[in-house]
Amino acid sequence: MSVRGIGVDLRCRCIETESRRMAKLIQSVELFPPSAHCKDTEIIATLKGTGQQICLDTTAPWVKKVIEKILAK
Amino acid sequence: MSVRGIGVDLRCRCIETESRRMAKLIQSVELFPPSAHCKDTEIIATLKGTGQQICLDTTAPWVKKVIEKILAK
Repeated sequence: MSVRGIGVDLRCRCIETESRRMAKLIQSVELFPPSAHCKDTEIIATLKGTGQQICLDTTAPWVKKVIEKILAK
Repeated sequence: MSVRGIGVDLRCRCIETESRRMAKLIQSVELFPPSAHCKDTEIIATLKGTGQQICLDTTAPWVKKVIEKILAK
């Protein structure tokens, strides 16, 4: 797992990020701006079917595209 | 409340959306693309402090700006 437990927000949620493209598997995306508890922006995707949560690479162009596509709908 | 209970995703989550600007109150933002259960894109913000969840107006320019700002960090 690359996401810490829910409710823990006194440190960064993501331990590692997934850079492989998985746009079609994504059910929803959650964005966390930097905060007092974590200096990084974090993007966590929930996958279709399994509901698995995956941290996405915030610098990957496909990740930005996925979000822009959702916003354009 | 403008958000249905968590776990209910057989229909749209948002009953009504907030169009007032509240960028500074936002702790995180969750994006739900259209699905078999809801034809609308839904954007749900979690507010700082209270953790209250608010559905945002997906067509409001300030909402897109908030998301773009998070992505740019």
